Amino acid sequence: MRIDVVTIFPEYLEPLNVSLVGKARARGQLDVRVSDLRHWTHDRHNTVDDTPYGGGPGMVMKTEPWGEALDDALADGYETGAHGPVLVVPTPSGRPFTQELAVELAERPWLIFTPARYEGIDRRVMDEYATRMPVYEVSIGDYVLAGGEAAVLVITEAVARLLPGVLGNAESHRDDSFAPGAMANLLEGPVYTKPPAWRGRGIPDVLTSGHHGKIARWRRDEAFRRTAENRPDLIERCDPAAFDKKDRETLSILGWAPEPGGRFWRRPPAVEQ
Amino acid sequence: MRIDVVTIFPEYLEPLNVSLVGKARARGQLDVRVSDLRHWTHDRHNTVDDTPYGGGPGMVMKTEPWGEALDDALADGYETGAHGPVLVVPTPSGRPFTQELAVELAERPWLIFTPARYEGIDRRVMDEYATRMPVYEVSIGDYVLAGGEAAVLVITEAVARLLPGVLGNAESHRDDSFAPGAMANLLEGPVYTKPPAWRGRGIPDVLTSGHHGKIARWRRDEAFRRTAENRPDLIERCDPAAFDKKDRETLSILGWAPEPGGRFWRRPPAVEQ
Repeated sequence: MRIDVVTIFPEYLEPLNVSLVGKARARGQLDVRVSDLRHWTHDRHNTVDDTPYGGGPGMVMKTEPWGEALDDALADGYETGAHGPVLVVPTPSGRPFTQELAVELAERPWLIFTPARYEGIDRRVMDEYATRMPVYEVSIGDYVLAGGEAAVLVITEAVARLLPGVLGNAESHRDDSFAPGAMANLLEGPVYTKPPAWRGRGIPDVLTSGHHGKIARWRRDEAFRRTAENRPDLIERCDPAAFDKKDRETLSILGWAPEPGGRFWRRPPAVEQ
Repeated sequence: MRIDVVTIFPEYLEPLNVSLVGKARARGQLDVRVSDLRHWTHDRHNTVDDTPYGGGPGMVMKTEPWGEALDDALADGYETGAHGPVLVVPTPSGRPFTQELAVELAERPWLIFTPARYEGIDRRVMDEYATRMPVYEVSIGDYVLAGGEAAVLVITEAVARLLPGVLGNAESHRDDSFAPGAMANLLEGPVYTKPPAWRGRGIPDVLTSGHHGKIARWRRDEAFRRTAENRPDLIERCDPAAFDKKDRETLSILGWAPEPGGRFWRRPPAVEQ
């Protein structure tokens, strides 16, 4: 996979040399090019922004440097045999970046990121390049950052670990939170390792019982417990058909009940006494 | 604000020297300490992980190095006059990191981050330190990363820009997506700057009309349009009392209607013809 990043803070992308992504680059599984947007400015001050039309606070990133930078990135990529580019624009106004979208992006051969600063990029840049490649405007979450660079690190890492051969142990995708399968839509519960006692704290007996069925059941109950506490929205989204009798019991103990229609589960309203 | 980060990839935190956070550090508004977890290991291989109790793929981070590292961070902080520590543990099993939580963390004087790798940290570490300070287990979104370091960059940046004096222009918080106020729960629409024509593309006439009321209305309509497209969940969460007549018209054109109960708006089901 080829990845281009154009930014006014190239040094922010240093983590792409580290750990999983860094190793994937060293092994030739990822070809990452980071460039400085200011390279494509032509004035003494290397201006990349100007005041917004219609007034208001903040500055807007100008069309021309982005246009020249993207034209050059595309030309360079095609010259080196890259194909199928996708433009990824991190913005709080975008659609949510999810594990599903990570899987979708991991299937593309070439991602081009345009992390913005200030109030964002002049709309015409996205409109123009949407005529030449798919444009994904994505938000990594409901919070405001100073710029899109941290989002590029997040998206690149989430995508890179899905590429064939990048994770050492193929199995370790299996129990991921948000992974498809038995734990779909459930968060992972607590994990423990040696020593068996630490600062007076032990581990749950079931984990040393050697009884695989009981361990699996305990883990699933803990996953329900944690999901009900931190992400009730995920339980509401679960398909009740995927719940077995013990699941229903666990959910009932946690204060959930089937909805009259039967499709979703929902915490019943608190009763005042 | 003091920020401690303990990690096995200290070099991943380099972006904390750059841009907004880097400048806040240079100005003395942020005191950031990054340390290497392996410093608190005592074997030849600097082991920080071991196999999970109960079996299964992946490795779990051991209690002892985290315990020693956190004890030292706390002792060092208190010695230098820091107070009110909060432990922030990035994990996909945590509660969602939101702008509201960023505001809450920005009010704390001292954040300690423990970004994990592998399958996470032995549960007893969080249980132990929860007796000594508030513990926030947080998830920055519904996707899986290779480790918590990228989440630390995201959370630090979201928090740092809220600290007094860190953002140059106090006004630029005002129209943030997710900010309280008129645009609460609406995404920002498109922005434009000079030149007025670029590659055959102009800008919406209203923006050069000089008519402030019309510009504000256009921006609000565009915000509705974008939110309806990318985040229907946010419109469902809006308080209809905050909508004026024109808002209702815009929503109606976008295919939304008031629910019989009146509390929320929802896209009516498609009618087959």
